[in-house]
Amino acid sequence: MKLNADKWFTEVYSDDGCALSLEFSEKLHEEQTGWQKLEIYQTTGFGRLMLLDGCIMLTDRDNFIYHEMMTHPVLCSHPDPKRVLIIGGGDCGCLREVLKHKGIKHVHQVDLDERVTWASEKYFPDLCESNNDERAIFSFTDGVAFVEQAEAGSYDVIIVDSVDPVGQAARLYSEDFYRACFNALSEKGIMIAQSESPLFHKSLIESMQSRMAGVGYNDISSLFFPQCTYPSGWWSASMAFKDGKPSEFRKVDIETKYYNNDIHQAAQAVPQFMRNSD
Amino acid sequence: MKLNADKWFTEVYSDDGCALSLEFSEKLHEEQTGWQKLEIYQTTGFGRLMLLDGCIMLTDRDNFIYHEMMTHPVLCSHPDPKRVLIIGGGDCGCLREVLKHKGIKHVHQVDLDERVTWASEKYFPDLCESNNDERAIFSFTDGVAFVEQAEAGSYDVIIVDSVDPVGQAARLYSEDFYRACFNALSEKGIMIAQSESPLFHKSLIESMQSRMAGVGYNDISSLFFPQCTYPSGWWSASMAFKDGKPSEFRKVDIETKYYNNDIHQAAQAVPQFMRNSD
Repeated sequence: MKLNADKWFTEVYSDDGCALSLEFSEKLHEEQTGWQKLEIYQTTGFGRLMLLDGCIMLTDRDNFIYHEMMTHPVLCSHPDPKRVLIIGGGDCGCLREVLKHKGIKHVHQVDLDERVTWASEKYFPDLCESNNDERAIFSFTDGVAFVEQAEAGSYDVIIVDSVDPVGQAARLYSEDFYRACFNALSEKGIMIAQSESPLFHKSLIESMQSRMAGVGYNDISSLFFPQCTYPSGWWSASMAFKDGKPSEFRKVDIETKYYNNDIHQAAQAVPQFMRNSD
Repeated sequence: MKLNADKWFTEVYSDDGCALSLEFSEKLHEEQTGWQKLEIYQTTGFGRLMLLDGCIMLTDRDNFIYHEMMTHPVLCSHPDPKRVLIIGGGDCGCLREVLKHKGIKHVHQVDLDERVTWASEKYFPDLCESNNDERAIFSFTDGVAFVEQAEAGSYDVIIVDSVDPVGQAARLYSEDFYRACFNALSEKGIMIAQSESPLFHKSLIESMQSRMAGVGYNDISSLFFPQCTYPSGWWSASMAFKDGKPSEFRKVDIETKYYNNDIHQAAQAVPQFMRNSD
């Protein structure tokens, strides 16, 4: 069957001979920002859709899984997180989830492209409902430079909510960046970074985690979760602990759609084919 | 981007405004069997692909997750499974996994369409590598009638590896069928049925499980797992226990690519939005 390109947006994952398409009723916005092409569509089955440079960033329907899994597991793994840094995350979905945790004193969100946050405030108001929380701080600047210049030990949790490792974003996957995060983290600090698909990008996950281990984190842990509109429908995040155990986490009572205490533990179960590479 | 229909197969999930495409280099086979249209493609990224009536049944690359999750959890949840019935499953992938368990005395695979098994033997030889095991029995007949006529208590585990609940296959989702399975199961018997996508088909999962409970099973449990080439990339199976607890399972040492003891437990963690319907 052939899809009508006037009604369907298609993202091709060329390395894997695979493509995902979403049907839309209207293109709501398109611009070339200083950094990338930004598009917003109204889809028929997934609510609104945001693209950056033709890649699906998020949809109304399924972003809850990603945003919850990028925030609650790492926050609950820290004994008392107060100061959080988000690198990327311009759609503000992670920010909203972080601010559900009562103990948080401030969250600093650092994204290069102010227009992503502008578009999210306009087209994804749910994600931005905590943007006016007085604990939220926004900087629109280079995340790598920001972390390099951050005061040592000034964050309890760093969340790297970045796009794929191409172009500018590739620096967010480097050993230098992981080392800068290590220095910016407090004694029991933890960083988490999205780490692509277990099915499509196993070697990327392995190399990311090996780089994290290389700069001195004492334990690395993977989280696995479904993510319908990302390549392969299956996604991962990698947590790097300065001084803590992935198996220990605080049980919290916050409102979520995907995450809960059972899911926290379950997400850490490692499929056999990912173990075999040990 | 528009995909060239000469090089890409596309399955549209119309209810959800979503489509998955796989690039192929060659169509290897096409026939109208007595029951359905059967096609085999050579893809560029997923090995071989089998379609029935235009729906993706399996690919070489990702079928391991589905087949392992449809077999090992249910078998390990039974104290000593010896007699197994597979309804559907003509590709023989479940059969192969079941036969990895040493205690199995016989597995009876009952699929309507002999041509599916023919095609699997020809194009997916890996899946069929245990077809000549002397414990394997094949019948090509109607699964519902077969179960209704089965001797009471004659199976320890029944695996319902069926297509979506449309046409002929809809009967495999009925209360009558679940009752027939209940009768055919031994005292500590367990049935498992594939139950579609948590993201796309939540109400189907709920109604299946409610029908299972309605015919007398004493406990019902869900399994969740990624499945790249099925709608939404996220899938489920439902287990119904005559007399057992989903939380108890035997640890086994068998060769797998996805399943292991941690994954068994993890797959039972219920996402918050699926709990809210309790």
